[in-house]
This record gives sequence, structure tokens and C-alpha cells, in this order.
Amino acid sequence: MPTEIEPIRWRGDHLELLDQRLLPDVEMYRAYHDTSAVADAIRTMVVRGAPAIGITAAYAMALAAQHLKSNEADVWHSALEPALQQLAASRPTAVNLFWALDRAREVIAAGGDVRARLLDLALTIHRNDIANNRRIGDFGAALIEANSNVYTHCNAGALATGGYGTALGVIRSAFRGGKIAHVYAGETRPWLQGARLTSWELMHDNIPCTLNVDGAASWIMQQKNIRWIIVGADRIAANGDVANKIGTHNLAIIARHCGVRFMVAAPTNTFDLTAATGAAIPIEQRDANEITHWQQGELTPPNCAAINPAFDVTTAELIDAIVTEHGVIEQPNREKIAAHFAAFNRSH
Amino acid sequence: MPTEIEPIRWRGDHLELLDQRLLPDVEMYRAYHDTSAVADAIRTMVVRGAPAIGITAAYAMALAAQHLKSNEADVWHSALEPALQQLAASRPTAVNLFWALDRAREVIAAGGDVRARLLDLALTIHRNDIANNRRIGDFGAALIEANSNVYTHCNAGALATGGYGTALGVIRSAFRGGKIAHVYAGETRPWLQGARLTSWELMHDNIPCTLNVDGAASWIMQQKNIRWIIVGADRIAANGDVANKIGTHNLAIIARHCGVRFMVAAPTNTFDLTAATGAAIPIEQRDANEITHWQQGELTPPNCAAINPAFDVTTAELIDAIVTEHGVIEQPNREKIAAHFAAFNRSH
Repeated sequence: MPTEIEPIRWRGDHLELLDQRLLPDVEMYRAYHDTSAVADAIRTMVVRGAPAIGITAAYAMALAAQHLKSNEADVWHSALEPALQQLAASRPTAVNLFWALDRAREVIAAGGDVRARLLDLALTIHRNDIANNRRIGDFGAALIEANSNVYTHCNAGALATGGYGTALGVIRSAFRGGKIAHVYAGETRPWLQGARLTSWELMHDNIPCTLNVDGAASWIMQQKNIRWIIVGADRIAANGDVANKIGTHNLAIIARHCGVRFMVAAPTNTFDLTAATGAAIPIEQRDANEITHWQQGELTPPNCAAINPAFDVTTAELIDAIVTEHGVIEQPNREKIAAHFAAFNRSH
Repeated sequence: MPTEIEPIRWRGDHLELLDQRLLPDVEMYRAYHDTSAVADAIRTMVVRGAPAIGITAAYAMALAAQHLKSNEADVWHSALEPALQQLAASRPTAVNLFWALDRAREVIAAGGDVRARLLDLALTIHRNDIANNRRIGDFGAALIEANSNVYTHCNAGALATGGYGTALGVIRSAFRGGKIAHVYAGETRPWLQGARLTSWELMHDNIPCTLNVDGAASWIMQQKNIRWIIVGADRIAANGDVANKIGTHNLAIIARHCGVRFMVAAPTNTFDLTAATGAAIPIEQRDANEITHWQQGELTPPNCAAINPAFDVTTAELIDAIVTEHGVIEQPNREKIAAHFAAFNRSH
């Protein structure tokens, strides 16, 4: 068995993040001792992936609490509010960030040993995320026929989560069950998470994979007999619309045209039931130079305009299955999602 | 008026090609004195774009003839056959290459002053290509409503042709007619012809344009009210299936889903009526390192597998209009294409 990939490590009194901007060339952990440095790490994509951002933010609140001296509840609240706000401003689309900050707010509001309880919250969120990904992996793998070729986009792997991955968790579980013949990975411009991260994870686990440009998706689906597209999510609306890495909506449209099924693998904390549809999800616009430049070099003519939406919204009717740690929502819609949440809320 | 972009120049006794691999940073012409160097220039994409490759091959045959001493017809034939074969082996998909070589074969078979007549052929093909592109531009522009946003892929511009361009010819003509508000250009991985070449051409002509990653196509179509996707072609089958740069089929599928119309702009020498459908068109597979590397650097983990089809086939039913120098074929199919060719063959 290959070793587990650990994108996020708590080191007793500080946080370590595997710098994903340097992968696959360099595997380097950076140490973080305060919230603003962590907020910066999220913004600059040292760490990325919706679940990983949520876990990182929870640890950042534990770091914020370490620096405080008082143990009085009202002091905690006012002292930690700037840290909550700083983290909330780091990236807008992944709802796991806001979910984790809401959990931290609850801990702060409850009072007591907030310092210990914020750290406990982060460790619990981290541990649960890995366990949930393994459940998602099993539920998703059960949908896949033996010896299938599948296609994934961006990186919804161990690196994007606490470990194991959501979409890549399904692929890992399915591969162990003999269900995956080959994985095709879209390179995912502009950050090339597919080329740099997904290929690295799959090669690390000895899962056969081949990289392609995003423009080759329909060619791959038709020529390589793809059975499922499997992706993660950054935020899922109450009706099943899914915000995910730019290019996901393209894939869902193409998959439907080509008769390929489309699976979204995400924990329930990726749902935003306050968003009625995908239209309510804020889409992050990132700097044009992520497209116009590569490293230090300019790719385009000077002053070339570029537009760089980091995410898009795939409408629910294009999705065959959303897989959470509680099971599978086939042909998702508002009613099925409400029922899914009602069922697991009852079971707690 | 901006100056005309000249990708291909005949200089009395040799050929000059604008090295498109160096654009937009450097505008450098390379000189060519013999066929094998030209075949290499085609293979390595100093020059690219189906019509430009055809014109370049015609000039390469003129160069081959310059080096021969005899004027006897049977000698010409055997002496020039290796040059024809070398050029035919340079790239497989663009049919304009084979069309130009067939014209050269006819000149050689007809005998006489083959040296002068091969040069005359190349100059005529080049001149006609530019004139045809202006006709295509006018026919295509007539389909576009005032003040439209349009989207293009790869580079089907002056650089891909003898001058003026096919898809960008339509955009140039439409812009002059007040019909284009804004052009969105897909960057077109792996060679980034959109980022490097289309943006350069449109900025050269002061046509407002914005670059986006290929994965953002559906987001752009929906958020920016795109009216037409306009692309070129490398080979069009008898039934209207279109081989073009990888990513084109994705766009056509997405356009249909989003209610955006899809136009292919190409001269009649891009048709291959011997190909019954797109399935008969050979798709060039290029080196994986075009995806796994950027300039000298490796993007992926060592030994990462990648698949790099350079073209894909868009089926005719996804195409709203094919525009040639003879007019518009709406909702193309086998019968309409046959009628289009019959009409202009009669008129000659």
C-alpha cells in the first residue's frame, strides 16, 4: 500500500500545509503560526479544494485562539471575530470554508475552554472529513461497473480534502474493487490541478492514468469509452446545482451529449441549503494574469484582456448522482436533497 | 487601417515564413530554400492552419523545381515525387495540404515549363486564398446581427491562411460592418493559439477581445450572451462533419446546449468529398510532451502519460452554417454540400 497523502498536518502548536503550488516538482510543507498567514495561504492557493480549505480554516481559528490570553467568553468573541472575518474573506465560492467558520462561531459562543475546544473542533473536522471521504468512496464505487474507464477534472483528491479525496476517493475505492481500468484526467487550466496534482496522486497510488487537455474531453469520452465523469464540488445548492472548478459545466453538457454519466462526490458540508439554486452561489473571479502569464513569462500580447472565472455552475438536471457520506442522491432535485438531509439529521 | 498580417512571403527565389511559435513575443521571418526544410517547418508548426499549410506546400514544390536542371516531363515527375511525398508526410489532418499537392501533381503531369508553372501555381493559390477569405468574410458577416458578442477557438486568422483569415475573416468583415461588439477567444491548449495568435491578430486590428481558458466556454456563452461560435476547419467530410482543432467538438456540443449558433468558415479546398463522414478523417496524434511540458519545464510528475489528439470531429448536425467563398450552407448535410459544389462547378 502506498503511504497516505497528507495535505494538512497539525504539529502540536502550529499548522503545516503541503504547498500545492510547488507540486509535483517539490514536496514542501510550510509552517503556519497565525491566522493571517493561513488566510493568505488559502487566497494564494498553497492549499485548495473545498474540504481542505474548510479544515485549514478550522485550524486557523485554533491558531487564533492560541494567541489569546483571556478565558472569558465575551472576550473570546470580540477577540476572535477579526480572525473569522479574515478567513471568510479569503475565497468566496467553497462553502466548506463558511461551514467550518460557523462551527467555530458555535464553539466560541458556547464558551468554556474555547482554546482547547477550537483545536478539538479542527481535529474533529479533519478526522471526520477523511472518514466521510472513505464512505463517499464506497458509495460512489458501488455505482461503477467492473473495468470502467472514468474521467475526472481538477483535483478532488487527498490534496483537496483532509485526505483520501472525494472524486479521487471514489476512484481509489473503485480501483481497489477492480472497477477502474483507466482514469483520464483533464489538465484543468489555468492552474493545471489535473496535470500537477491529480496525476501525482494517481501515480502515487499506482492507478493507471492519462492526462489530456480540457478541449479533448468529448474526444476522450467517445474514443475511450468513458463510463463516468467523476468530480468534486465547491458548493451545492438546495436544488442540486453544483458549483465546481471552471470547466465542470462544459464536461456535464458534453457527458450528457455523449451518453456518459456524471457523478459529483462531496460531503454534506459542501451543501448550501440557503442557496435555492446555483444562481445564488458567488463565483470567484481571479486575476487575469493566471491566464495571460505562465510563471514569470507573458504568454499573450502586452495588455491582452482575459477573464478568469474560477468556478462554474452545473445545473442539477445534468447530474446523474451526487454522492455524500450518507449515500447516493440519484437525479438530484430539491425534494431528494431535502429528504437526504432529513434522513441523516433524524439518524443523529 | 492596420497593416495586413503576412504569414507567408515569396521572395523571388525563396520562401519566408513568420515563425508562429515565437509569437506574440517575437515577429521573425525564417527563410526557406528547399522542400525538406519546409516540410520540417510544417511539422514543427512554424506555420500552421489548414489553408496556410496548403499554400506553404505549393511554394515548397516551387522550391523543389528550382533545384532541378532538366526540362523533360518524365524527369520532372520522378524528380519531384520525393518532394511531394515528403510534404504529404508532414501533417495528416489538414486536407488543404493534399489538395495543393494534387494541384502540383497536375502541373507536373501537364509538362511544359514546370519550374515556372509550379511557382505560378503557388502564387495563384496564395492570391486566391486571400480573395476567397474576403468572400467568406462577407458571406459570414451577413449571418451576424448588429452588436453581437462572438466566440472563437484556436486561430483561423490571417496567420492560418494566406491572409485575412477564415473565422477571423468573418469577424474582421463583421466588425467593419458594426456587427461585432466583442470577441471572446478560447486560449486553445496545448499550443495556446488563441492566447498567442488570435489575441495578437485581433489586437493588431483593434477589435475588442478577451481571452478565456477553454474550460470557461459554457460560462462565457451564458454570461456574455454569445450569439455565434465561429471557427475554421482542417477537413470537412462530404456529409458536413468538420475536423478542426481539438476542443471544437466540445464547443459545438456546448453551443447547442446553450442555444448559441455555430459557424464553420472554410474555403472549398478544405472539403474532402472522398471522406463520406468525419470517421474517415485521420486525426493527428501529437507528442505527449506538448501537454506534459511547458518550454523547458516539466509540468507533470516524471513519466506521466498524456494523450494529445490535435483535432476532433464535429458532427454536421451540430453545425448551423458552413461558409465558403461561394456562399453559406445552412444546417449542412450530404445533399446540400453536393448541391453547393455542383452549383459552383457549373459556374466555372
